[in-house]
Amino acid sequence: MHADADIPTEIQRALTEFLDVQQTRLAEIGPELTEVVQAARDATSGGKRLRPSFCYWGFRAAGGDPREPILTAAASLEMLHVSALVHDDVMDSSDVRRGAPAAHKRFEALQRARSEASGLGADPVGFGLGAAILLGDLCLIWADEMLHTSGFDAAALAAASKFFDAVRVEVTAGQYLDLVAQASGESDMDRALRVLRFKAATYTIERPLHIGAALGGGGQHLVDSLSAYGLPLGEAFQLRDDLLGVFGDPTVTGKPAGDDLREGKRTVLIAYAVDHASEVQLAEFDRLFGRPDLGDDEIQLLREILQDSRAVQACEDLITERTEDALDALDRAPIEDEAARKALADLAVAATSRKL
Amino acid sequence: MHADADIPTEIQRALTEFLDVQQTRLAEIGPELTEVVQAARDATSGGKRLRPSFCYWGFRAAGGDPREPILTAAASLEMLHVSALVHDDVMDSSDVRRGAPAAHKRFEALQRARSEASGLGADPVGFGLGAAILLGDLCLIWADEMLHTSGFDAAALAAASKFFDAVRVEVTAGQYLDLVAQASGESDMDRALRVLRFKAATYTIERPLHIGAALGGGGQHLVDSLSAYGLPLGEAFQLRDDLLGVFGDPTVTGKPAGDDLREGKRTVLIAYAVDHASEVQLAEFDRLFGRPDLGDDEIQLLREILQDSRAVQACEDLITERTEDALDALDRAPIEDEAARKALADLAVAATSRKL
Repeated sequence: MHADADIPTEIQRALTEFLDVQQTRLAEIGPELTEVVQAARDATSGGKRLRPSFCYWGFRAAGGDPREPILTAAASLEMLHVSALVHDDVMDSSDVRRGAPAAHKRFEALQRARSEASGLGADPVGFGLGAAILLGDLCLIWADEMLHTSGFDAAALAAASKFFDAVRVEVTAGQYLDLVAQASGESDMDRALRVLRFKAATYTIERPLHIGAALGGGGQHLVDSLSAYGLPLGEAFQLRDDLLGVFGDPTVTGKPAGDDLREGKRTVLIAYAVDHASEVQLAEFDRLFGRPDLGDDEIQLLREILQDSRAVQACEDLITERTEDALDALDRAPIEDEAARKALADLAVAATSRKL
Repeated sequence: MHADADIPTEIQRALTEFLDVQQTRLAEIGPELTEVVQAARDATSGGKRLRPSFCYWGFRAAGGDPREPILTAAASLEMLHVSALVHDDVMDSSDVRRGAPAAHKRFEALQRARSEASGLGADPVGFGLGAAILLGDLCLIWADEMLHTSGFDAAALAAASKFFDAVRVEVTAGQYLDLVAQASGESDMDRALRVLRFKAATYTIERPLHIGAALGGGGQHLVDSLSAYGLPLGEAFQLRDDLLGVFGDPTVTGKPAGDDLREGKRTVLIAYAVDHASEVQLAEFDRLFGRPDLGDDEIQLLREILQDSRAVQACEDLITERTEDALDALDRAPIEDEAARKALADLAVAATSRKL
């Protein structure tokens, strides 16, 4: 493919081709499996393709040849991401994803319709939960299969698999920290920062860059430089995402306004607010935060506490600072391909801008 | 290692060594992760090590050199199995596994204790569910990492990964068919047979043999012969397991007596009974089957229906027939190593015996 190919389009093509093959394979096991493949198709449609984009440009930064099957390999990160999203929505009981029903709600509706048609069967909620767990498992397995059947040679795959193993473990570990944080009922800035790093920063930016660089034959110096760019940028990206989870426009985020406040997500934003709120604000915050039934007025109240405690400004400052660190590191990175350098600079802005 | 090494002990050693490395790695992300590794240690302790054993003897059947790291590679199948069990217990709401609390109950208790100690936090059930999903994800990731870092060369791993991809997808697909079957409220012999095949037979015996044979350099003729042995044996094994799920001694199975009847597992045994029961038996069956609160007397009543409809005898006959088919195929298989031949014959008996 051409160096200036439309990455999202190519990623979509790679995912569709892969799922076409899987559909044929699964149909041999049973016609029922078509509904799982369809759910995977829908779940892998849309999205910003951030992880594959960073993977692609990491590859180019290493001087990788764009005629290699890098976009199929990069698409494996989208499959991994969908696996994490599907399981995350089950864990958070989030019913909406990218403006559509989350996987467990989709399977629940499927089973409810089936059960009403036949007059038999029950427990559509349990079916939805189980089917979503299996869909997430399948996407996790498929991510690995997509990468190692992408067409790269054994040496390139061996170099990449070290980072692919790392990112899979890190994002799962980060999710566990997040779960502990949410269940604790406590706000802990240290833990919020570790969740930020492992659930988001390494996963969204640093490791995709590493995987791409390894596939492109990049050495340790490039890998380190990509960390110096990718880690602070990943943190800035997630801080922006956390702000959008509270203040974002539902038509842009694809999730109901203030959903993170109903879920009780213990982000850095929240940890800062709790550390700096007045006693009155704190009492109000504790009364409302994490209640699934929050109305618009209560969401607004929580937003005001986040503003007044200067948590929002602190996050904005951090985003600016981390993004600048990333761009400085990019300036120093040993990247010869000027297109890659420019693309990584543009991605830094896109990943942290207010409208994402 | 020596050819006659104690396989279960070596599998345990490989799992422990791998988890020691993972514990160090996860401790860098956060001390909270130690509890996840501990859960993985407990979940991978015990069990019959059937899948690693078949993998090992498939390797030997192919003439593989026992000084190769086959037992580490074989242990990856135990890790995969634990992933499936952990997620399966969440989906079935099974609270007991191998005589101990299932993973989600274990994490639930952990969170309950934490929350009582701090006076903060809530929803231990949700925490248990989320943590068990993540533990299963981690074991699925680790299974792959164990295999491809086992020490085999790239060519052997490439040959094995085809079968490893197949088994991971098949078992997940089989689980989905099982979920559809359980949710349907209908008994369907065709679907029960497909669940038998893909959730159990290929997964427990055929594919582990294939993975071992591929690592040992075995060709297509051996792979086909191992299918001819492994598929019918896998079905016989699962039919025995289904009988034990209804009639087994809890001190041997590690699960409460009759648990499969409370869960409403739509096995071949159940499908046969429904096809052959009298109208009166069927009415009684429908009233009781799948009710989570069944008492001892009701379990006994369901057992009698299974006996009287001759479903039990039909399953016993199938087990005998399939095991004989497997042993006949073994006689014809191109296996030069007599120790491997004898071990596979012994495993056939062990995997289908009444006491398993």
